[in-house]
Order: sequence, then structure tokens, then C-alpha cells
Amino acid sequence: MISEKLKNVIRDVPDFPKPGIVFKDITPIMMNSTLSKEVVEHLKNKYKDQGIEAVAGIESRGFLFGYPLAMALNVPFILIRKKGKLPYHKESFAYDLEYGSAEIEMHVDAVSKNQKVLIHDDLLATGGSADAAAHLIRKCGGQVVGFNFLVELEFLEGNKKLNNHSENIVSLVKY
Amino acid sequence: MISEKLKNVIRDVPDFPKPGIVFKDITPIMMNSTLSKEVVEHLKNKYKDQGIEAVAGIESRGFLFGYPLAMALNVPFILIRKKGKLPYHKESFAYDLEYGSAEIEMHVDAVSKNQKVLIHDDLLATGGSADAAAHLIRKCGGQVVGFNFLVELEFLEGNKKLNNHSENIVSLVKY
Repeated sequence: MISEKLKNVIRDVPDFPKPGIVFKDITPIMMNSTLSKEVVEHLKNKYKDQGIEAVAGIESRGFLFGYPLAMALNVPFILIRKKGKLPYHKESFAYDLEYGSAEIEMHVDAVSKNQKVLIHDDLLATGGSADAAAHLIRKCGGQVVGFNFLVELEFLEGNKKLNNHSENIVSLVKY
Repeated sequence: MISEKLKNVIRDVPDFPKPGIVFKDITPIMMNSTLSKEVVEHLKNKYKDQGIEAVAGIESRGFLFGYPLAMALNVPFILIRKKGKLPYHKESFAYDLEYGSAEIEMHVDAVSKNQKVLIHDDLLATGGSADAAAHLIRKCGGQVVGFNFLVELEFLEGNKKLNNHSENIVSLVKY
């Protein structure tokens, strides 16, 4: 099963990004092209009959599987980037972090009216970035029809934050 | 031809990131899944018989085609990231920018001794990041056997900077 295979390679890095935090490092997945392709194939099969019309990936680790998944589903890929990176006409959405705040942006022409968008990121922690991405997509006229993550840290209850956008929240590996 | 198809969708955004600069915006490629897959297929065919043993992508737009290309070639993908993002044992390389400096990092276990690495990024401008990526890969024991870019701004002569690492420099679109 894909979850077990992923768990076998995802590694714990203690005290990153700060003391007391155990970071789930997904880069060993990228070192294994067979497993990488299995993940894309698994996600494709999961979503191919759900009427997904675009996949949005959150910079930068959300680009890793987000774009291959969009290609596999034959739908456009929407880049959600940190403030100041996208050059064209754009919308932005600011949100609070534990300390301070962050702002993400997307091109207004990246989504069309009522287009059904799946949001992808590598990690669901508190849900702050995915929630912000959902607000941003709706601000640009799209519909958020689901969230997909490689890894979910369940004890942080990020899914509660995302429920009001869509109950279709899928994580391949949960801790 | 792939170059013409790409030129037809890459758009000029004037005065980004600052007045007087015309930015080549590649995001319309991502909006077209058929063209996206054609790019991956084209790159796969170009490199499949060249003995490439890993593809390195430079954060974050280098992740977009770098990882799908690595999967298509059945080789590992190496993430080259901005300082402070990678959690595990890593090497870093600092380089000068027009104003100030930048530092990139990679995990030391992402490359093995003498492994043949193709470096990919979306844009070749002055060549500063790609040159730094090449130094970093060599510092970690890998061999740089080529550079690949979607877009090259020839008047900035970035290829001269990269020549000392490898003369195998390929850009799909040149301006």
C-alpha cells in the first residue's frame, strides 16, 4: 500500500525548524523515481472520476506532486506563490502565522469562473496555508472541491480549519 | 516544434520585477496540460540516452519540470533549495547577486559519488544560480553533466558562466 511505502521512506528530523519540533522530511520520496511515479498514479486514480478541473499547488513543495498530478489528470496547474513572485495580474490573500503573517498570490487568469479546483500541498499541519489558498481561489472565482496532502499531522487538527471549504480532505500518510 | 509552441504561450510582462525589465512569464505553460506533457516528453527523449543518473531542480520553478523529468528518466530528483528550508544533513553554497548575495543548499545524501547530474531550471539569465548549483553538486561528490533550461536570455551570456562545468547547455526557448 502506498501509505506504508511512503512511511517507510519519510524520515523524522528532530529539532527542525526549531527545538522540540520533529520534521517529516519527504525528500527521500524524490530520491526514488519508482515510488514517485506510484504516488502520481495513485493520486490520478483517486481523482480521475471526481470532475477535478484544475489542480492548485502551494509553493514550493506543493509544486512537486501538484504539477505531475495536474498533467496526469489532463487539467491546468495553478501556481500559488509567496508574495512578489508572480509577474502578471494577480490576487493576494494575507493570513496569520504563529508569529507574524504571510501573504500568498495567484494570477487572476489561472482559474476560470466556477472551475473545480483541487488544492495540493505536501503537508497539512495547522491548515493555515491551505485555508488561505482556498480563500484565494474563491476570490478569483474558482470552486474548491477538495484538498490533498502527502502528509497530515492529525494532532494539529488542520482538517477542522479546512472543513468549511470542502469535506473532501485526503492525506496519504497520517501521523 | 516545441520551441515555437512555448514561444506562443510564454508572455512578456513589462516592468517586472522592476522598471525596465521585461519578464518572461512561463505560467501559461502550466495552464496547458497537453503542452506541459509535450515538454516532459521532449526532454525525456533528448536526455534518455545520455546516461543522466539524477536531475537537480532549483527552487522553486526548477521543481516544475525538474521532478517530472526525473520521473520520466527513472532517476532520482535532487532538490536545490534556498537556505534554511532543508531539514537534514546538508551542504551550502553562497554566491553574489547584482545587489547582495544568496545561499542555496542540498542534502548531502541526495547525490552519490560521481553520480551524473543534469541541472534544470526554468530560466538561464546571468547563470548565477545554475553556477552555484553546479558548485554545490560537486561539493557533495556529484558530477555535473549538463544544464537544461526552458528559457534562456542570450544577451545576458549566462552560458559563458556555465561552460566551465559542462558544455552541454540546452535551452528550449532563446530570446
